[in-house]
Amino acid sequence: MSLFDKFQPLSAAQSALSGTGPAAIATPIESVHSATRGSINGNEVILAGTNNYLGLTFDADVVDAAGAALRGLGSGTTGSRMANGSYDAHRALEQELAEAFGWPAAIVFSTGYQANLGALSTLVGRGEYLVLDSDSHASIYDGARLSHAETLRFRHNDPDNLDRRLARLGKDARRALIVVEGLYSMLGDQPPLEAFVEVKEKHGAWLLVDEAHSFGVFGNRGLGLTEACGLLDRVDFVVGTFSKSLAGLGGFCVSPHRQLDLMRLASRPYIFTASPSPATIAGTRKALQKLLGGQALRAQLHRNFQRFYAAAKELGYRLGSDIPGPVAAIILPDRETALAHWNGLLAAGVYANLMIPPATPSGLNLLRISLSAAHSDHDVDLLIAALTEMTVAA
Amino acid sequence: MSLFDKFQPLSAAQSALSGTGPAAIATPIESVHSATRGSINGNEVILAGTNNYLGLTFDADVVDAAGAALRGLGSGTTGSRMANGSYDAHRALEQELAEAFGWPAAIVFSTGYQANLGALSTLVGRGEYLVLDSDSHASIYDGARLSHAETLRFRHNDPDNLDRRLARLGKDARRALIVVEGLYSMLGDQPPLEAFVEVKEKHGAWLLVDEAHSFGVFGNRGLGLTEACGLLDRVDFVVGTFSKSLAGLGGFCVSPHRQLDLMRLASRPYIFTASPSPATIAGTRKALQKLLGGQALRAQLHRNFQRFYAAAKELGYRLGSDIPGPVAAIILPDRETALAHWNGLLAAGVYANLMIPPATPSGLNLLRISLSAAHSDHDVDLLIAALTEMTVAA
Repeated sequence: MSLFDKFQPLSAAQSALSGTGPAAIATPIESVHSATRGSINGNEVILAGTNNYLGLTFDADVVDAAGAALRGLGSGTTGSRMANGSYDAHRALEQELAEAFGWPAAIVFSTGYQANLGALSTLVGRGEYLVLDSDSHASIYDGARLSHAETLRFRHNDPDNLDRRLARLGKDARRALIVVEGLYSMLGDQPPLEAFVEVKEKHGAWLLVDEAHSFGVFGNRGLGLTEACGLLDRVDFVVGTFSKSLAGLGGFCVSPHRQLDLMRLASRPYIFTASPSPATIAGTRKALQKLLGGQALRAQLHRNFQRFYAAAKELGYRLGSDIPGPVAAIILPDRETALAHWNGLLAAGVYANLMIPPATPSGLNLLRISLSAAHSDHDVDLLIAALTEMTVAA
Repeated sequence: MSLFDKFQPLSAAQSALSGTGPAAIATPIESVHSATRGSINGNEVILAGTNNYLGLTFDADVVDAAGAALRGLGSGTTGSRMANGSYDAHRALEQELAEAFGWPAAIVFSTGYQANLGALSTLVGRGEYLVLDSDSHASIYDGARLSHAETLRFRHNDPDNLDRRLARLGKDARRALIVVEGLYSMLGDQPPLEAFVEVKEKHGAWLLVDEAHSFGVFGNRGLGLTEACGLLDRVDFVVGTFSKSLAGLGGFCVSPHRQLDLMRLASRPYIFTASPSPATIAGTRKALQKLLGGQALRAQLHRNFQRFYAAAKELGYRLGSDIPGPVAAIILPDRETALAHWNGLLAAGVYANLMIPPATPSGLNLLRISLSAAHSDHDVDLLIAALTEMTVAA
């Protein structure tokens, strides 16, 4: 008898995916040369399977700012925010995030995963409610598991279903926190945010929008879907991450409620972890500046994903979203076809993500292509050509 | 009615701590100039409240390695290890950690907090058991909460109590994972590790040792208390962090069981988070080399903490541990005395940690002084002089 016996089914499933080339799951990337180029298995590839939506990972100003902080403040803080890990730079980033939203409060976490754990497990507790979209990211579900609140789910992107769930709570809906995402990372689809806000207001509930994949991408200043929909004055919390458009590692929660700050005293995933390194904070601050003034970057990103969506549809593919966005999820009929597509693209010099159950909603087999502002028009031509070749061969 | 009402007692408790100087909790550190010096409230202080046990945060080789990776591989990976975040460097660090222990498997996590969450929530599941020391770190308790295993507790550092707990499980003890720490971070005390190993072997259970605060500190090669006790061939898992002796941010789990590798397929805090940044990985790899060959650093650290412990005892203080270690927890009679000590040390140019309930075990009020290999003999003289002055003044 071994504790490891329970992993055997997963192991067998992974073995079934292994071919002669690089593994499609946890693909070893030898090296990355720019925001859009890397080496896999000795070959240079276009990176079209990252979350580098603004392509800032090699931005000279971001790299210089991070390097200066590394040399000036050291490689790590070696402590939590509650002890010795609250440098002026951490507080400055929090203030800059709050100011970006025009709100009074922001808290920085060491990872985006911990931002959701920290916010959800603390904002609601015993006798309160978390009301989650059924397609929520694992970090949202894990935050709910850490919380002592009661967790309810509503049907993905379905405000009517949410309305019925809240109606059943009656007056208790005023102690319910609804959680939706600005962009769902597997299918690339967006929520009907205004309809959700209306349901929230009808019941006096609270709303948190996780903009992990939409921050930097939507809205004039890049604040996310909430800004793009003109709803910044009608939500209660926005969570985001540093590890996508901001090219770092960490996460944040911002709020129009000044009392968000009190969460620092109670949030275990905030308190009991080392704070982000000086280099990460400095790079993220610089990236945030570029993001807020990044209208040109967003214009290129939108041109890229609109072209790619149009081409994929023209080739007859079914996509996970009707509205074009930075994640193009090509829905394939089965695991073998998805794996063949992944390998075919890699052979054509394109790195994408293979996404299969149980990681995907509704048991779908997906080829996930993500676009970046750093992709040139020519890069997008190459991506479309590689997909076209796959289609002709199929 | 507000979701924030529940934070009011915490808020009131914090306000009661606020004086005219810098806050004793989450002290704003303006800047850090070296592993042992920083600025607080405009004054230079000796840092004696960090977890920078080997003082490597400003090591030129660590900083250079991190800087080279930042420029060469970018500011972040923007993806999880299961997607686009498994660079060769991440795999190399895992191999180097495994080789350091002479074991076949190691997994790197994005924070130390997530290492405990990821290991504990995954290694044991439904129908299995987690058996925790009652003084365990929050990340261990949170990992237990995420896990579907049943959680039991035994009395702090009490192998007989553990023995009775396991005896009650009968044959099921073979599906139990015991968790202890190599050094408890609040009181600075160590477990009777060999006695725990004997109990584990008697019942056929599994043992995980969290060496977060002992890695780099104990053992000839710095592998921790397990190495120092000659028990590396009798434990099942070691968890550690990059954010203390290794001067970075992240965590790891290593094991003599090759099947540890299967955990990657199931561990949500491993799968659903962005991987550590290239700079963090490169800095940590260099710091690991220094740690393994760091006998001279450890000699200085041990000299420092032995001198400090001896002096504190001579001054009549009660310490959290009888065995000297890098954490010297001075137990003070009440919150006011602890706060006065913290402020007194700060006025004398020494930054320490104030640790008060509910963060401390047994409701203790602690002044936590941590020693570093980077503290010179003269620095330790200064620390002892500052404490002596407090004592005379009291």
